[in-house]
Amino acid sequence: MERHFDQQLNELKDALLQMAGIATQSVAAALHALVQRDDNLARKVEENDNILDKMEVEIDDRCIKLLALRQPIATDLRFITMAMKISSDLERIGDQAVSIANRAIALNKEPLLKPLVDIPRMADHVMGMVRDVLDAFVYAQPDKARDVIARDKKVDALNDQLHRELTSFMVEQPNTISRALNLMTVSRKLERIGDHATNIAEEIIYLYEAKDIRHQR
Amino acid sequence: MERHFDQQLNELKDALLQMAGIATQSVAAALHALVQRDDNLARKVEENDNILDKMEVEIDDRCIKLLALRQPIATDLRFITMAMKISSDLERIGDQAVSIANRAIALNKEPLLKPLVDIPRMADHVMGMVRDVLDAFVYAQPDKARDVIARDKKVDALNDQLHRELTSFMVEQPNTISRALNLMTVSRKLERIGDHATNIAEEIIYLYEAKDIRHQR
Repeated sequence: MERHFDQQLNELKDALLQMAGIATQSVAAALHALVQRDDNLARKVEENDNILDKMEVEIDDRCIKLLALRQPIATDLRFITMAMKISSDLERIGDQAVSIANRAIALNKEPLLKPLVDIPRMADHVMGMVRDVLDAFVYAQPDKARDVIARDKKVDALNDQLHRELTSFMVEQPNTISRALNLMTVSRKLERIGDHATNIAEEIIYLYEAKDIRHQR
Repeated sequence: MERHFDQQLNELKDALLQMAGIATQSVAAALHALVQRDDNLARKVEENDNILDKMEVEIDDRCIKLLALRQPIATDLRFITMAMKISSDLERIGDQAVSIANRAIALNKEPLLKPLVDIPRMADHVMGMVRDVLDAFVYAQPDKARDVIARDKKVDALNDQLHRELTSFMVEQPNTISRALNLMTVSRKLERIGDHATNIAEEIIYLYEAKDIRHQR
């Protein structure tokens, strides 16, 4: 019995990591759709989104069954409740990727506003946060999760900077307005992916240290 | 023992309703700050946000303790797990109110772009959704929650319409750009409050009917 429960928890962890892999792939594909101006990559993101939606529901169902049947305490209880939160954040990262992909499709119809430098940089930074927060989860490293939280400030700063730059573009050349608005959305969605990575980091710290550090910054 | 557990569940419900009251008050205050051009109302929203942050953490802690000590099943288990999700949505409604209040403060520094008609209309619609979803929770009416979900389409449509109108403003009169961007943000935040009301509605349907209807639209 005990061993079977451990196995169920391991399966839950694997399901989360699989979800994380798909969510990360979606963000990368949405960015490639934008940078390489390739609508086909954007469609992949939509497919992934359907899978993530199903996995979120399936993971929640699995967690609630484990809570009912196993009545876990301590670490196992924290793991199961955090699994529900982590899957929700991963599903939302997939949603942001869909929005980015949709903006990429719109942007690909018009000439490039300016060389895309800041957005790929911001995306690299955000993807690094997501990758590291998953490492923190897999290798039980709450300090690595803390480091991810600290890195979110840079994402916010990059988003603010891009917002200001794009606003200047709009004021100086009104014919760029619709493109600038689409790029602002992409930047904002990347910023939200950073927020989800931060949420996951907080969830991982709670999982491994039983400390709720939310809203303390 | 049994009676004490019922009491704890009732206290949890009361805490959620108190949180809902504060979140709703925040949205109303943020909107008044905008419509009545009154920065003082905006500051109230910030205070409420701190309270909501604390309550979210406190409710989660209470839920995890109840799961560990009471090992609930069936309805009680669903109630406790959904309480964690509902409190998270309420806290985020408070976050959107803070963003609206900040935009109100920025907008109050400049002349009115145009009479505010659509945003108060959208806000009324969204506040109605939040109010009704809480009724659905208190009076155990999943059909009322379903109705709230159906009403979210209108919010999305209003947001899209406002986005188009404000884009035209920007193109025709570039000196309106910063104000139009702030109003777009307000509209988008209202749209997200509608999404949170929808999430809560889905959580309530799961609570009362044990059916997970997410991602089925």
